[in-house]
Amino acid sequence: MNNFEYCCPTHVVFGKGTIARLSELIDRNKKIMMIYGGGSIMKNGVYNQVKQALEGFNVIEFGGIEPNPKYETCMKAVEIIKREGVEFLLSVGGGSTLDATKFISIASKYNGEDAYDAIMIREEPIKESIPLGDVITLPATGSEMNNGGVISRLATDEKLPFHNDLVYPKFSIIDPEVTFSLPTKQTINGIVDTFVHVMEQYCTYDVNTPLQDGWALTIFKTLIEEAPKVLSNPTDYDARANIFWCATCGLNYWISLGAVQDWATHMIGHELTAFYGIDHGQSLAIVLPRLLKNQKVSKSKKLAKLAREVFGATEPVDLKAADIAIENIEKFFNSIGMKTKLSDYEIEAQDAAEKVRARFAKRNTALGEKLAITADTAYDILIEC
Amino acid sequence: MNNFEYCCPTHVVFGKGTIARLSELIDRNKKIMMIYGGGSIMKNGVYNQVKQALEGFNVIEFGGIEPNPKYETCMKAVEIIKREGVEFLLSVGGGSTLDATKFISIASKYNGEDAYDAIMIREEPIKESIPLGDVITLPATGSEMNNGGVISRLATDEKLPFHNDLVYPKFSIIDPEVTFSLPTKQTINGIVDTFVHVMEQYCTYDVNTPLQDGWALTIFKTLIEEAPKVLSNPTDYDARANIFWCATCGLNYWISLGAVQDWATHMIGHELTAFYGIDHGQSLAIVLPRLLKNQKVSKSKKLAKLAREVFGATEPVDLKAADIAIENIEKFFNSIGMKTKLSDYEIEAQDAAEKVRARFAKRNTALGEKLAITADTAYDILIEC
Repeated sequence: MNNFEYCCPTHVVFGKGTIARLSELIDRNKKIMMIYGGGSIMKNGVYNQVKQALEGFNVIEFGGIEPNPKYETCMKAVEIIKREGVEFLLSVGGGSTLDATKFISIASKYNGEDAYDAIMIREEPIKESIPLGDVITLPATGSEMNNGGVISRLATDEKLPFHNDLVYPKFSIIDPEVTFSLPTKQTINGIVDTFVHVMEQYCTYDVNTPLQDGWALTIFKTLIEEAPKVLSNPTDYDARANIFWCATCGLNYWISLGAVQDWATHMIGHELTAFYGIDHGQSLAIVLPRLLKNQKVSKSKKLAKLAREVFGATEPVDLKAADIAIENIEKFFNSIGMKTKLSDYEIEAQDAAEKVRARFAKRNTALGEKLAITADTAYDILIEC
Repeated sequence: MNNFEYCCPTHVVFGKGTIARLSELIDRNKKIMMIYGGGSIMKNGVYNQVKQALEGFNVIEFGGIEPNPKYETCMKAVEIIKREGVEFLLSVGGGSTLDATKFISIASKYNGEDAYDAIMIREEPIKESIPLGDVITLPATGSEMNNGGVISRLATDEKLPFHNDLVYPKFSIIDPEVTFSLPTKQTINGIVDTFVHVMEQYCTYDVNTPLQDGWALTIFKTLIEEAPKVLSNPTDYDARANIFWCATCGLNYWISLGAVQDWATHMIGHELTAFYGIDHGQSLAIVLPRLLKNQKVSKSKKLAKLAREVFGATEPVDLKAADIAIENIEKFFNSIGMKTKLSDYEIEAQDAAEKVRARFAKRNTALGEKLAITADTAYDILIEC
C-alpha cells in the first residue's frame, strides 16, 4: 500500500426528508447565494423544499448553470457575489451545479485576470474561498464529498478538472427521494459515471490494497444489482438510496486511499464532450471499453479479478479473463440503455481521433496510471471507438 | 437503508515514516501533554521518533495509561492539565492510550464532582474539550478515526463506553512499521477486536445496505488472508498495512452508515474484563460464538451470507449456513492462536454468568440490535462460554 493522507470535513446528511435540516446547517446571519441549474429543481419540488427550509434567511438566487458548467457562466455569479457581499454558497442541483459552485467559491476570492487559466491550467494554490454547502440531486459525480470539480470554457472548447481542499462542502444533503423523478437518461448517465469513477481508481497496477479493491468490486456489484431496479421502478427508495451512496462513495476517495489511480478515460471523455457536446456519462461509456482493450496487458490482473468476482468468470488465464471483463462492462452499459460507440452519436471516429490527438500533442499530454497514454495512444483508442 | 449523518474531521496520515509529520500537524505555540502507556514506545523507537519530531515544542509527559484504561489514572492527568494549562493532547500508543486521552480531553473541561458518572453514566453533553491528536501504534480499537472510547473504573469494577464528537482526533498518524515489533499476543488481540467490531455492525437485521455489507465482508476476507502473513512474518509491511487499515475502517463507521448495529458482544465482554481482567480481544473471542448461537434465528440472513461469501459455504438453508459461519469464525480465532472458552482462562462459566446477570439486572440492561439481550439472556450465553 502506498502512503496517503486523507481529511474530508464534509458533514453528510443522508436520507428521506433531510432537506429540512438546511435551516440548522447554515448560519442565518450570513448572506447566501443559492446556485442552481436549468430549472429541474422547480419541477421536482426541491426548490420549494429549500425555500421553505430557508424562510427568513437572506438568500439571493443564481440559476442557469449548464450541464458541463461553463466558466463564462460561473464568472457572472462571481461578479454578483463580489458586488453583493455574498458569504455562503448553497448549491442545489446535480454535480454540474456543485462543480460550478466550487469553482465560484475560489474564483470569487481570486483577483487576477483570468481565473480559468489560474485555477485550471497554472493551478495556482488559491488560499481563500467562500464556504459552500449543497443539496445534491443527482447520483453521479461524487462531488458532494470531494475537493474537485470540472469546468468547461466555451471560448476555447476546453473542459478541465481542478482540486482544492477549500472546496470540500461544509455539508452535503443527500435525499434519495429527489431522484424518483429523474429522467431515465440522467439515471443511466449517473450509473455509468459512477462505474467509470470506480474503474479509474480500481483498474490500475496492483500495490497490494485488497481492502480498497474489494470495496471497489462491491460498488460494481451493487450498481449492477440495483440499476435494473431503479430503471424498472423509479420510486424504489432503497435501490435509489443504494445507487446514490455508491455514487458518493465512488469518488469520496475511500476506495483509492493508498492505491494507484488512472483517469485517462475521463480526460479523453472530457475532450469528446468539449468538441461534440455529448453527455459526460456517454463519453465515458464510449472511451472506457476501447481504452481497456488498448491497456489490457498492464491492467490484466485487476481486470481478471473483476471478471471473476463480479461477472462470475472461471477463466484461469488473466489476459483472457480481462477480455471477459471488458465485454461484460460494455454489455452492462448497453443493458441499461447506454450506447457505447461514437457512431451512435453520428461522430466520425477519424475526426474525433485527429482532433484529440492534435490537442493532446499541443499540450504534451501523458495520461493514465503510468503516463503511458500519449496523444498517439489517444488516437489509437478513439479510432476504435 | 436508514437515514444517517456522518462527519469525521480527522486528518489521517498513513504510511512509512509519517511520525515526522508531527511537527507540521501541531501548533508549536501550544503547551502539549504527550500521553502514553506502560513504556512499549520506549522499546520500539516510537518515543524517540516523537521527541525528535517535536524538538523545540513545549511538551510535558504523562505515562502509565493501562490496558483497559482506568478512570483513576485519567483523573491524575486531568489534575496536571488544569494546573499546567495544557492546550493540546498527543496520544502516543494503542487504543487504550487514545481512549484515555479522549476521556481526559473532555474530563479536563468538566467541573462537576464525578466525571465518570457524568460522562459514562449520566451521559452529560459536555461541550468543551482540549483538542487532541495521536500516533496510533496498535491496529485494534479503530479509535483513531472515531468519536468514542471505553474507560474502566477500578473503584466499582465498571467498564463503559462514551461518545462525544469533540473527541474526534484532529489527526491520526498510522505508521504500520511501528507494529513490526508488536508482541504476537497483541497482534492476535487486535485482529480479533477488528473482526468483532465488524461483526457488531454487519451481523444485524437487514435494512437493505448491500454496499456497507459488502465492505464489511471485504474486511473479514482481508483479515483472514493477511493474519497468517503477519503472524509468520511480522515485518511484512503490506500485510501490516492492510491489517492496520482494516482496524481503522473496522470502526470509522464507513461500514455501518445507514445500517443497524448491535454491540452486545462488546458489552458482555467488557464485564468479563472488568470482573476477571482478561484482555478485551480475549473476552470478545469467548462471547461472540455463543452470542451468535443464541441469536442465530434473528441473525441468520447475515450469518448465511458471511458463510457463503467469506467461508465458501454452499449450504442453501440460511439457518444451517449460519452454523457454518459461527463454526468458521471460532476456527479462525483458534487458528491464529486465540482461545475461545472461559475455561482456557480458568474462569468458571457459572460464576461469570451469575455475576454478569446480577449486574445487568441491577442496571436494567437490554442489549443488541433489538434490545433482546436481557440479564437472563446474558446468563444463558455465558453459561455456554
